[in-house]
Amino acid sequence: MSRAIVLAARPDGAPRESDFAVQEILPQEPDDGEVLVRNVFVSVDPYMRGRMRGVRTYVDPFAVGEPVVGGAVGRVVSSRDERFAEGDWVVSMLGWREEGVAKGDTLRRLDPELASPSTALGVLGMPGFTAWLGLVVIGEVREGETIYVSGAAGAVGSTAAQIAKLKGLRVIGSAGTAEKVDWLSSLGVEAFDYRETKVGDALADGIDVYFDNVGGPQLEAALTALRPFGRVIGCGQIARYNDVEPTPGPRNLGLLVTKRLRLQGFLVFDHSDRYGEFLAEVGPWVADGSLVYRETILDGLESVPTAFAGLFRGDNVGKMLVRL
Amino acid sequence: MSRAIVLAARPDGAPRESDFAVQEILPQEPDDGEVLVRNVFVSVDPYMRGRMRGVRTYVDPFAVGEPVVGGAVGRVVSSRDERFAEGDWVVSMLGWREEGVAKGDTLRRLDPELASPSTALGVLGMPGFTAWLGLVVIGEVREGETIYVSGAAGAVGSTAAQIAKLKGLRVIGSAGTAEKVDWLSSLGVEAFDYRETKVGDALADGIDVYFDNVGGPQLEAALTALRPFGRVIGCGQIARYNDVEPTPGPRNLGLLVTKRLRLQGFLVFDHSDRYGEFLAEVGPWVADGSLVYRETILDGLESVPTAFAGLFRGDNVGKMLVRL
Repeated sequence: MSRAIVLAARPDGAPRESDFAVQEILPQEPDDGEVLVRNVFVSVDPYMRGRMRGVRTYVDPFAVGEPVVGGAVGRVVSSRDERFAEGDWVVSMLGWREEGVAKGDTLRRLDPELASPSTALGVLGMPGFTAWLGLVVIGEVREGETIYVSGAAGAVGSTAAQIAKLKGLRVIGSAGTAEKVDWLSSLGVEAFDYRETKVGDALADGIDVYFDNVGGPQLEAALTALRPFGRVIGCGQIARYNDVEPTPGPRNLGLLVTKRLRLQGFLVFDHSDRYGEFLAEVGPWVADGSLVYRETILDGLESVPTAFAGLFRGDNVGKMLVRL
Repeated sequence: MSRAIVLAARPDGAPRESDFAVQEILPQEPDDGEVLVRNVFVSVDPYMRGRMRGVRTYVDPFAVGEPVVGGAVGRVVSSRDERFAEGDWVVSMLGWREEGVAKGDTLRRLDPELASPSTALGVLGMPGFTAWLGLVVIGEVREGETIYVSGAAGAVGSTAAQIAKLKGLRVIGSAGTAEKVDWLSSLGVEAFDYRETKVGDALADGIDVYFDNVGGPQLEAALTALRPFGRVIGCGQIARYNDVEPTPGPRNLGLLVTKRLRLQGFLVFDHSDRYGEFLAEVGPWVADGSLVYRETILDGLESVPTAFAGLFRGDNVGKMLVRL
């Protein structure tokens, strides 16, 4: 027997540990083309909150009573796909469970010599790829521009801020604790604590691009600060995911026309054909240390709900993971 | 002596006739490279409201006590630019005045055999070019898509709606009177009166593109109706130009990310290099009648303030002009 975390109830507002439960699951055997994987790291990501609502957005919602699906890194226990052998490290979408069977086509093998396998869930995985896509494909950032990154100490934000620095931008970033601000400052980011400094004051010099990880009120300040032809990269809205009622949008959206702004949202899974391009550019920066990453790691499957709920309290610096 | 309309006071809310005054102006003689023009049509355009505020946006505000500058069509009285001769039809930025001197470089000669000179202020001028740019350059519309055009009976909207039809889109359009709705219906537009039908109901089938001429609350309904990868063409915000206080934005801007939407504003004057391309595509449609236009024409310089104020009451069908 092994264990999984199931969605026990749809969260009402901020997710609570009681919205989840540990459940024993039956052992599975791989069929032809399938692989049995024992997870080592499971990922908790803000976007998963959206799938806990009972409505379809771009994917179906999670079912109550079922194990939660998401990113995970593990090792192959047994394989009936010739591309994978026992002991291989793989990244999967097996989610919040100790072990599971996946089709070989859904797995990607990791080389633990190249980078820590956990990075496949962070700086070299979905969050890092998201950061790169937002900057390069959606924001089309250029050397010499100024960018503001909200949620800059998170998995996506901290990667976006550093890629922007490496591409020659001036980077302003916000976070919610002194520790996070200190870390960002050490990376060359002009960092501020949004709980202490008004966003508008921090952006008073003007910006060219806003990398929006939080949604909500910060957008209004960013629209005011954006220069003509400015872009908003609509990446995430962690400040809004727990909303029970919709909140009003920015009062200054009329600036869209007068400043010729572009606001564009995106989802990483539409762009999987560019993952190789991302890895070719960002992989070497991670390998040589010019792009650093942090992980906040909790231990044990039963910690997953705490880790997940902690995302919305800002408990993490960098990527939040659970090690099994 | 000739006369001009000056800005007497900055409008507070909706512009009133009393915000303007008729003033005699001294006769001018053209210097080398200049042309004296007698205006035949002067243009009133919604964007001019923005320049009546006392703040700089993308251009300087109009000065109180000075003649109002804007689009006009007239005939050359005398010329010291070899490219223009007495009697030539020209389009200028001389604005709300009976006659004036302009540099030859700021004039474009019109061929009255090709199209009525007044079209240089409407379907073949700034409003028509705006419509085409919004669809082609900003919205990147494609055959088979569904577009919603607000303010669809205006100078920009009626041209945008028809160009979209000619490009093979399904077109839904809104206007504020039964007469306008009837006209749009006769053009093959699925037209509705936004004072009688909820925008959300009219868009219940979903849309791919929203051509926004009005700003404000309609955007919220459009965001809800937009399909994944939908675009909002931020062209104008006539419903907002008279606002004294900013109004809240759409409550559903979170859809930007989940639906991967793009909202983009633009101003026609950034794109003047594409005017020839516009004219080559749209000119023949106007000439052969496959794209029709309407003009609402008032007579006499003293009617200009009434014509301008009327834009915000929806008095016009198609392009609003004053004939001198």
